[in-house]
Amino acid sequence: MKKVAVVGYGNTKFTKDELPIESLLLESTKQVFDTTKNLSQDLIDGLSELSGIKPKISHTVEHLCSSGSNAAVSGFSYIASGLADTVLVTGADKIGNPGQILEWDKSRGEFDHPIYWASMFTKAHKRQFSTTDEELAIVSAKNHKQAMDNPNAYSHKPYTISEIMNSKNVTDDLRILDCSYSCSGSSSILLTSEETAKKFTDEPIWISGIGQKTNSASFTKNELTTLSSSIIAANDAYKMAKTTPKKIDVAEIHDAFSVCELMAVEDLSLTEKNTGASYVRNLFNTEDRKINPRGGLIGAGHPLGATGISQIVEITQQLQNKAKKRQISNAKSGLVHNMSAAATSSTVLVLES
Amino acid sequence: MKKVAVVGYGNTKFTKDELPIESLLLESTKQVFDTTKNLSQDLIDGLSELSGIKPKISHTVEHLCSSGSNAAVSGFSYIASGLADTVLVTGADKIGNPGQILEWDKSRGEFDHPIYWASMFTKAHKRQFSTTDEELAIVSAKNHKQAMDNPNAYSHKPYTISEIMNSKNVTDDLRILDCSYSCSGSSSILLTSEETAKKFTDEPIWISGIGQKTNSASFTKNELTTLSSSIIAANDAYKMAKTTPKKIDVAEIHDAFSVCELMAVEDLSLTEKNTGASYVRNLFNTEDRKINPRGGLIGAGHPLGATGISQIVEITQQLQNKAKKRQISNAKSGLVHNMSAAATSSTVLVLES
Repeated sequence: MKKVAVVGYGNTKFTKDELPIESLLLESTKQVFDTTKNLSQDLIDGLSELSGIKPKISHTVEHLCSSGSNAAVSGFSYIASGLADTVLVTGADKIGNPGQILEWDKSRGEFDHPIYWASMFTKAHKRQFSTTDEELAIVSAKNHKQAMDNPNAYSHKPYTISEIMNSKNVTDDLRILDCSYSCSGSSSILLTSEETAKKFTDEPIWISGIGQKTNSASFTKNELTTLSSSIIAANDAYKMAKTTPKKIDVAEIHDAFSVCELMAVEDLSLTEKNTGASYVRNLFNTEDRKINPRGGLIGAGHPLGATGISQIVEITQQLQNKAKKRQISNAKSGLVHNMSAAATSSTVLVLES
Repeated sequence: MKKVAVVGYGNTKFTKDELPIESLLLESTKQVFDTTKNLSQDLIDGLSELSGIKPKISHTVEHLCSSGSNAAVSGFSYIASGLADTVLVTGADKIGNPGQILEWDKSRGEFDHPIYWASMFTKAHKRQFSTTDEELAIVSAKNHKQAMDNPNAYSHKPYTISEIMNSKNVTDDLRILDCSYSCSGSSSILLTSEETAKKFTDEPIWISGIGQKTNSASFTKNELTTLSSSIIAANDAYKMAKTTPKKIDVAEIHDAFSVCELMAVEDLSLTEKNTGASYVRNLFNTEDRKINPRGGLIGAGHPLGATGISQIVEITQQLQNKAKKRQISNAKSGLVHNMSAAATSSTVLVLES
């Protein structure tokens, strides 16, 4: 398998504005040219109309909330197989896109939105681990705070734990500030082979581990307090990268709802089982940005097609020591965790400088 | 790059019935299990909910009329790179799916349908090559006739050249029987690595060549009588397979409209430039099924997501000598040609036994 690097990237601001999807894609794609050297349109084997690129391979990858990371893995496979050498992976979403709601969500109770499963997860987590509303609110407070230093974030407003706990109840167990924001935005990355990487950048970031798992969407009661697809995906990614969770310096985690971050830090083995809440509380208290430095989905916003790619952009910037105020010192190894469909599908990437 | 084989396949009937997309996918997927040995759900690394498969990689590939072949190339790259070993590629479409109409088609004149570009192509072809209505009608007569021996075809009705020439005018240059049928249907293939292929079948069919090209969708006047993306894709596929057009025994060609077949047989170098019409006339007169043995899109129907995959199923059956009444004698090497978006994007595959 050929080695594959991230060599360029771009991000629009994530906003509630109703912008044309083409403008969003073009803006983040344009930045890819700004963050690389020697790149011209004819050097790209994969993707995108308005940019004047005439690629070999060009298609849409759709996988709900984890479309972005799935597209990155698809791009990786084209390069690793030798079918392509340089691939532009670009994702975007527009606020109010009807594709953000699963058809089968509509049949499950009164909420025509992923809120129904987040509510079930939260209730189950509270029951099994005695998780408190304050512990859930800390996730949101931390990520909103971290988003303040991300110029592209949807939210630039800090919230106190009390404000979050007292924000509007969406269900018995979910407050509005526990939820990520649906929004408009676009992110892009340029992937290329080892042979070509040095041409485009002096600081290639390698995708060294990939894990993916999709379980049946008909999850059972037993699985409401664990992200079983994430456990499998993470183990596969660590194995492929020949690394361990202890070596991860910075992680982008799929906090579509606050409970997801508490579950994910455990299921990705970043902390022991049943210590997720105290682990996140400690990060918050010590102002350690290790988890979701750009503000996560809760702080930065969640434009479905862009999210997984924007997570890769953040880890790339962190490993290149270019994350400015968000920078984790001496970050050498990073992780991306992107999920979809009530956490029944997970993608985990390990990136290394 | 690892070798990749087609080792199993399935096809539903292509019909005008409004069937649920899940039932269609399940039916063609089920046949994959029937056409292989030793296959169980846990052996598949890629795809599909209802079938009880819990894959590593599972996402939708969307590329309009060539979604099917793009998904197959994506599956190929996952296996060739080593990220997956066995991938199920399954496609389906439902009659009346609004995704069959391009948004930008709607802005170009009175036809909210690909008919506008087919009409431009046909008019330009008539002007430049003095192509006659009879020559166009022969494509449709041949493919409708060949579809008679395809049990899954949408049409089982033969048409005379005169009936086709006198069928309803859709535009000045296009009759209704020059157009492929939008319909419901599903097709699936199972791809696997060289190491695993023998486990599932005694007759693996190898995907030995792949070519893809996407040009800008803003095509120019000069390009109306040639499929420039197909020329590039075909040359790349022949090169990768280390073969030549002369060695192709049987070809599935994207005859979305009759003029496409006349252009494609030339642009894929199956005959000399400006001999497409006489080449197809000769096939018709000699009852040679070399081009579109299952009836093409015109005879078999065109369920967008399934078409490219059903073309691969046909070539696989031909190279396995299992195409029954449609069999080309002694077929060793076959070609698949799948296009989208007014022929601005082409995928060409070479398959070999």
